[in-house]
Amino acid sequence: MSHKESPLNPLKAQEESLSQVYEGLKSLNLNLDITRGKPCSDQLDLSVELDGILAGNYTSRQGIDCRNYGGLDGLQEAREIGSWLLDAPTEEIIVGSNSSLTFMYQYISQAHHHGLEGDHSAWNQLEGGVRFLCPTPGYDRHFSICEHLGIEMIPVGMTGTGPDMDQIEALLQADPSIRGLWCVPKYSNPTGDIYSDETIQRIANLGKLAASDFRIFWDNAYSVHDLTDQPANIADIRHLSLQAGTESNLVQFASTSKITFAGAGISFLSSTKENLKIFTDHLSYRSIGPDKVNQLRHARFFTQQQQLTSHMKKHAAIIKPKFTRVLELLDSELGDQTGSTWTRPEGGYFISFNTRPGLAKEVVKLCAEAGVKLTPAGASFPYGKDPKNSNIRLAPTLPTIDELDQAIRVFVVCVKLATARSSH
Amino acid sequence: MSHKESPLNPLKAQEESLSQVYEGLKSLNLNLDITRGKPCSDQLDLSVELDGILAGNYTSRQGIDCRNYGGLDGLQEAREIGSWLLDAPTEEIIVGSNSSLTFMYQYISQAHHHGLEGDHSAWNQLEGGVRFLCPTPGYDRHFSICEHLGIEMIPVGMTGTGPDMDQIEALLQADPSIRGLWCVPKYSNPTGDIYSDETIQRIANLGKLAASDFRIFWDNAYSVHDLTDQPANIADIRHLSLQAGTESNLVQFASTSKITFAGAGISFLSSTKENLKIFTDHLSYRSIGPDKVNQLRHARFFTQQQQLTSHMKKHAAIIKPKFTRVLELLDSELGDQTGSTWTRPEGGYFISFNTRPGLAKEVVKLCAEAGVKLTPAGASFPYGKDPKNSNIRLAPTLPTIDELDQAIRVFVVCVKLATARSSH
Repeated sequence: MSHKESPLNPLKAQEESLSQVYEGLKSLNLNLDITRGKPCSDQLDLSVELDGILAGNYTSRQGIDCRNYGGLDGLQEAREIGSWLLDAPTEEIIVGSNSSLTFMYQYISQAHHHGLEGDHSAWNQLEGGVRFLCPTPGYDRHFSICEHLGIEMIPVGMTGTGPDMDQIEALLQADPSIRGLWCVPKYSNPTGDIYSDETIQRIANLGKLAASDFRIFWDNAYSVHDLTDQPANIADIRHLSLQAGTESNLVQFASTSKITFAGAGISFLSSTKENLKIFTDHLSYRSIGPDKVNQLRHARFFTQQQQLTSHMKKHAAIIKPKFTRVLELLDSELGDQTGSTWTRPEGGYFISFNTRPGLAKEVVKLCAEAGVKLTPAGASFPYGKDPKNSNIRLAPTLPTIDELDQAIRVFVVCVKLATARSSH
Repeated sequence: MSHKESPLNPLKAQEESLSQVYEGLKSLNLNLDITRGKPCSDQLDLSVELDGILAGNYTSRQGIDCRNYGGLDGLQEAREIGSWLLDAPTEEIIVGSNSSLTFMYQYISQAHHHGLEGDHSAWNQLEGGVRFLCPTPGYDRHFSICEHLGIEMIPVGMTGTGPDMDQIEALLQADPSIRGLWCVPKYSNPTGDIYSDETIQRIANLGKLAASDFRIFWDNAYSVHDLTDQPANIADIRHLSLQAGTESNLVQFASTSKITFAGAGISFLSSTKENLKIFTDHLSYRSIGPDKVNQLRHARFFTQQQQLTSHMKKHAAIIKPKFTRVLELLDSELGDQTGSTWTRPEGGYFISFNTRPGLAKEVVKLCAEAGVKLTPAGASFPYGKDPKNSNIRLAPTLPTIDELDQAIRVFVVCVKLATARSSH
């Protein structure tokens, strides 16, 4: 009896068969990319009227010629869009240029190098360093700001209803060097967690346990990015903070990057008037003011909150079928065969996938070799280190549904193959 | 003989008469502002086609959808505009958002907090501090960046053909803590100096005398902002630096703020490819990329250098009569009566006026009380301190010619009155 005819054990046979399927997929020379939470061109087309919307009228409601210098705080009518996104009055909102990430970096870099409470309050002068609490998995660009500035990150688990508040409260009480907590409260990146009312109430109370210049970085990036007809309403963090007397510990962020144009939207920062004053005083050294013309375009595009709401329904109509397709394929092709789990988000931009512990890097590598680019394993963790090597962030919005279908079919084969290979 | 009838000495009589004229002007309750170098609305109207110029086509020449994320370096076609302004190849140019000041701040803040040559090269770690050479009078916002970051400023005189190079070379050789030199090489703010070929050659050689991370901040803000038909061509600093082997010491800046829209233009930074790589590596932590849509608008607006040239002639046609009116009034109303002097710029945005030593603050105060707002005396000097209390920066572009005429008529009375009062 030759070697070829020898009976294989069933697991080994399955692995061989998967390997053959995988080799077949590789031969297709695919070139697909589901790495980043980018809107697709159909979504961008929804805002195509922005360029030209001014029709030669560059004057704001308050009579400002938006083409000229000045106005560090942003236009009044643009602040109103911010107030819809962040549930804060316009006098507690400033409007920036095309990236709320820039606002976050500026706020933290200012606190780190200059301090929030005058001379000698710079975080980088704290003996023993400064630390941030980082719910994980989370947004990689939050973490890279910390890493760049030398702020030590302490990972905190996610529970399905937001971060583990027992852990956060215990850490804050034990460690006086903690100055920040990252939060994406609605459709958290990448887990899709919607923070529960209890979680948000406990977050609003954190200021009582922390240093006076502790800040909650409330990145409400997906506040109107719903995929369901009955979207969640999260608790009002600003209101709860005011009740708790901790409002100065709260800094909120939002942008229109995933509402209008990803690279050419407008951004918002909200905090107490005192906090805004300190922030804009610093900002004045580095900016001649934001692009008010683009702010005016946005204000003319969304004159009423209802227009924003219906605009977001058009986004959902484009991307929900993509989420549905991914979930259908994961359900039908993987089911519970591999021990993998995944989220079923009601909004936002991601599906968070967990392989069996130890397999994420291998799956990402197998996909890459088959022409399907995934976010690097570990990217959603501080320092890029997923202790379980299990989490993979899937971003369904950018590809066409056919590309996405192909990419996920490759992905499930890679998950099965990595799982099979690890099972002996 | 009553007091009223007593014969006054001639100087006293002149002062009394000027006081009466001044009181008369005060009673007009003027509200005029010639503080800042802002373009007027006629100038802004020259670029009114920018909004809408894309006509729905948001795709760059290289096929990039400019609406989406990414492209930290800026669009290729926008870099070409930068190459016209800065005489550098497009691969040595990156394009940013609406403010070259932001690029300057980011570059210096990065060098200060993180260093330009890897770990431990941060300027803020230099024992004994870090210093910049500041030709004065100069641009207040350059100086405020230094002040904000705690960089000590060493004033250097201006000669009429650029900064005093003897002084600069001697200082650089004597003080190893110097890391920067501010330059506005053409129509320097506020003196209007056009750096001579010899000055620029000597600046290009400075890298040989300085620390390897010494940088020349070459803010070519007015490179195409000529007021004459035969505009000056300054020497090519990049070329001279390459010849001297000092190209890594040079960082150039420009923007379209005073070409298209002051608050909604695009900005440029140019340096060696190695320097750009280090800069953009840091930039990636704070930005999702510049507003490429606005870059594309600018590239569609200026498809050829000739369009930019003729566009700038239209600017000159609007603002040159304003400069002429100011100079006519100063000549006819002051002449050499008061010992004051002023510049006759061939481009740029300012006339630099010098009272007799000791009078600038008083003139600015008298003007303010008569409803004419001037830039605070001393604003063009490091720490706001003009050692001679003599310099006043006049900015003729923003007001209408009638407003400007009124403002300068008040100004000359204030100069005469302050001079008369100081003469006894």
